Amino acid sequence: MSDIPGIVITGASGRMGQMLIKSVLASDKCRLVGALVRDGHDWQGLDIGVAMGGQPVDVPVTSDPLEAFAKAQAVIDFTTPAATVDFAGLAAQARAVHVIGTTGLTDNDLKAINAAARHAVIVRAGNMSLGVNLLVKLTKQVAAALDEDFDIEVIESHHNQKVDAPSGTALMLGEAAAEGRGVSLNDVSDSGRNGITGARKKGDIGFSAIRGGDIVGEHDVLFAGHGERIVLRHMATDRALFAGGAVKAALWGQDKRPGEYDMLDVLGL
Amino acid sequence: MSDIPGIVITGASGRMGQMLIKSVLASDKCRLVGALVRDGHDWQGLDIGVAMGGQPVDVPVTSDPLEAFAKAQAVIDFTTPAATVDFAGLAAQARAVHVIGTTGLTDNDLKAINAAARHAVIVRAGNMSLGVNLLVKLTKQVAAALDEDFDIEVIESHHNQKVDAPSGTALMLGEAAAEGRGVSLNDVSDSGRNGITGARKKGDIGFSAIRGGDIVGEHDVLFAGHGERIVLRHMATDRALFAGGAVKAALWGQDKRPGEYDMLDVLGL
Amino acid sequence: MSDIPGIVITGASGRMGQMLIKSVLASDKCRLVGALVRDGHDWQGLDIGVAMGGQPVDVPVTSDPLEAFAKAQAVIDFTTPAATVDFAGLAAQARAVHVIGTTGLTDNDLKAINAAARHAVIVRAGNMSLGVNLLVKLTKQVAAALDEDFDIEVIESHHNQKVDAPSGTALMLGEAAAEGRGVSLNDVSDSGRNGITGARKKGDIGFSAIRGGDIVGEHDVLFAGHGERIVLRHMATDRALFAGGAVKAALWGQDKRPGEYDMLDVLGL
Amino acid sequence: MSDIPGIVITGASGRMGQMLIKSVLASDKCRLVGALVRDGHDWQGLDIGVAMGGQPVDVPVTSDPLEAFAKAQAVIDFTTPAATVDFAGLAAQARAVHVIGTTGLTDNDLKAINAAARHAVIVRAGNMSLGVNLLVKLTKQVAAALDEDFDIEVIESHHNQKVDAPSGTALMLGEAAAEGRGVSLNDVSDSGRNGITGARKKGDIGFSAIRGGDIVGEHDVLFAGHGERIVLRHMATDRALFAGGAVKAALWGQDKRPGEYDMLDVLGL
Repeated sequence: MSDIPGIVITGASGRMGQMLIKSVLASDKCRLVGALVRDGHDWQGLDIGVAMGGQPVDVPVTSDPLEAFAKAQAVIDFTTPAATVDFAGLAAQARAVHVIGTTGLTDNDLKAINAAARHAVIVRAGNMSLGVNLLVKLTKQVAAALDEDFDIEVIESHHNQKVDAPSGTALMLGEAAAEGRGVSLNDVSDSGRNGITGARKKGDIGFSAIRGGDIVGEHDVLFAGHGERIVLRHMATDRALFAGGAVKAALWGQDKRPGEYDMLDVLGL
Repeated sequence: MSDIPGIVITGASGRMGQMLIKSVLASDKCRLVGALVRDGHDWQGLDIGVAMGGQPVDVPVTSDPLEAFAKAQAVIDFTTPAATVDFAGLAAQARAVHVIGTTGLTDNDLKAINAAARHAVIVRAGNMSLGVNLLVKLTKQVAAALDEDFDIEVIESHHNQKVDAPSGTALMLGEAAAEGRGVSLNDVSDSGRNGITGARKKGDIGFSAIRGGDIVGEHDVLFAGHGERIVLRHMATDRALFAGGAVKAALWGQDKRPGEYDMLDVLGL
Repeated sequence: MSDIPGIVITGASGRMGQMLIKSVLASDKCRLVGALVRDGHDWQGLDIGVAMGGQPVDVPVTSDPLEAFAKAQAVIDFTTPAATVDFAGLAAQARAVHVIGTTGLTDNDLKAINAAARHAVIVRAGNMSLGVNLLVKLTKQVAAALDEDFDIEVIESHHNQKVDAPSGTALMLGEAAAEGRGVSLNDVSDSGRNGITGARKKGDIGFSAIRGGDIVGEHDVLFAGHGERIVLRHMATDRALFAGGAVKAALWGQDKRPGEYDMLDVLGL
Repeated sequence: MSDIPGIVITGASGRMGQMLIKSVLASDKCRLVGALVRDGHDWQGLDIGVAMGGQPVDVPVTSDPLEAFAKAQAVIDFTTPAATVDFAGLAAQARAVHVIGTTGLTDNDLKAINAAARHAVIVRAGNMSLGVNLLVKLTKQVAAALDEDFDIEVIESHHNQKVDAPSGTALMLGEAAAEGRGVSLNDVSDSGRNGITGARKKGDIGFSAIRGGDIVGEHDVLFAGHGERIVLRHMATDRALFAGGAVKAALWGQDKRPGEYDMLDVLGL
């Protein structure tokens, strides 16, 4: 029995789930103690290493969260809102840190998660990368330093399978810019320019969404003034990045008091 | 009396008009013989050099095109569709080369211009820069060389006073890409992405419009494949560029047969 | 006699000098009271407006700094180190704010300037743009937040007449990055990579200098990690930017105590 | 026994070798028939699938090229110059297509390879990506279309373990630009700018090398004129790209006459 934290990965058969499992297996600061799939999935009962096309790692795939979480010090979870709300309650019972990368959560989902966070550590973030979270912070700061003579635009590029625009991270950056300026993003957001738009409205925050190939994720925050521009750019080139951030969050949460945290807390920004 | 071509600038008091006048005055391959404003403009009768805040250049501002064109070997015209159609007839009568940078011309306007081109040289282009016209050519060629595994996106940035999106030049690039692929842009154009868009449709050509500050004009044509991307980029950083291209077109047209030409002809591309 | 500050421009016939004169003439918060050239320059005695090819502005060009500074509340100075050291003493005697954009100052020059700053306000900066100074601040901050797993590179682009590499601004950014990391730039600077360089040394700060056309000045600070990158970028597209910053500094300095200041002070960053 | 071509991968334990093996295993147009390591390597005798940490694929690792090549229709080889020269002779004897991605070959090495190509098909390329080879073609074409008023710069970015600068691909692009202009790259190359360089020499082709993180490979060819710029950019974001190109070359070569080919031949550019 090891002293390093044991981690369960939910949604183990998905692209992000497999990335998380590889990340945990590759780390010497934590160990894999469970791999969860939905009931009826054909990986159930297999060794997760074998199921992923490699050699056995002595962790069977299960569809029973209770059993899996009982052995865990942390659960990393990039699944669906409904599943995540369930997992939040179960992880809290097991006193396991719950790292949530699931997107599309409604206000009701957030309330349920918040309730669970009274009893356990929850780290939730729309984007687990160090760089993106740093960019959010810089964006707020630059938006506060510059006045409305600088037009703010958020430009993002993603792969051709992405179904929504702008990306969640782009909106997070837009929110940060709006906060820096002391306005509400809803009042100034300008997304999907097309046709006769008229001149740009002063104070607006614009969004553009580029889609193509297998682009992992790139975000530019442009501040365009007279005779000069500032651009704050983040490029993610490897999805493993997000898995690495989630594992970091799981480890960081081990000795924290119950509550809901985000990646800025984890990164100490 | 000089042997070098005499040039008239229409819309002389506008931003582009003044740029064109400076370009002609700075060139030793042509001379300024007229500066036209609309009837009733308060520059009428002034020396154009003085009207622009400088020293006299011995060319009075006039609102009479007939008188002005009579002395000219070329007319450079970035005005409105209605004015340009009139000027096309008058320039043809005077056997002057008519360089047209006016945008927003309707099919009827184009017919009138075409009729005038039976008797005189007309050079008409949506964008007078060498680089943009070269980019159009490259875009068509790359679109033809790559298959639909490469997603095509056109991204443009302009100043915050621009009232339409995508830019005319972006559409010109999109047309070139569609031609290269042997499809019609109307069938594949995807502009103004916003909200739940679904995955990108294979074969689409996407457009994004960024607006901010005093950006003169930047255009990217992105070909995004698996594990690689090609970008063809043009940046215009000085409006004088377009004036220089127009003057070049006026000189190029001096010894050509009547007909309608574009910048690819002028540039020999 | 006006209450708004009177400004003298040194090096009035140079490219930057003329830009500064235009900036002062265009502002309603200050007025031009002097235009200085070196003794023997053929503009001496002319009206500066006329000398620059425009209409008279009632300010004669002079080569006598004493006379010019006597009427001034500020002197803006982008000249040579030797001239700037002289002007610092004379401006201090006249109790005029001395805004210094001159580059290439030696340690001895800096001592002389520092001595003058005991009696008058001096604002000195390698780059007068709001954006660049903000970028310097961000660079230091990001370098402090990220560890050496992120490689830092400074990439700059300038016009083809620039004679030195890397640019002064690039070095300023490199210094800021080094400070953020708590190292000395001298120990980690890696400029001019060429040939068999070996692998990049961890902790180095690299510099690349791109030269071409009439690029005004662009600077990227790249932080390249594993699977992600952050880029902080500044683009200057109009030299008038630097003139505008200098005029802003001259006005800001009017009610300050004697001392040496930089643009971060002026901009309140 | 299958009719699809059997492929041997040399340097099977290296990063590129493993990428190539995965590419061949993933393709249904060819099959893996051999995996070669140097004599004494501890993978010898293991199943290559197992050696790479996965499940067996029924191909043992060997250090005997003769034995391996005898079963092969193609050999893909990203190793060292000395090994590649040996393999060229042996592959020619076996009448197998030899795809060479090895860099750093001397003139003598090239002569030996050329001799082997009298008896067999050899495809050799500094860069196996479709996009890069297309970029080479465009670069030559644009350099021929634009005169020396446009300054040409090649800027490349690679990971921090790369030991040489500029990259082989950057030099290939520089060669293409020089050819387009009708000059020799040796006469105009300007790499490693640093210190007091003087103004840029007209007609020069400049190189900049950026190093950081795990950047796979990015190349910009900049044409910087007055008031405008053109950039031709390629980004490789996944090394699998180069493996895919090599496999494509191996298949393409199956029905070709003996001779030495490059990727432009393979891609039909």
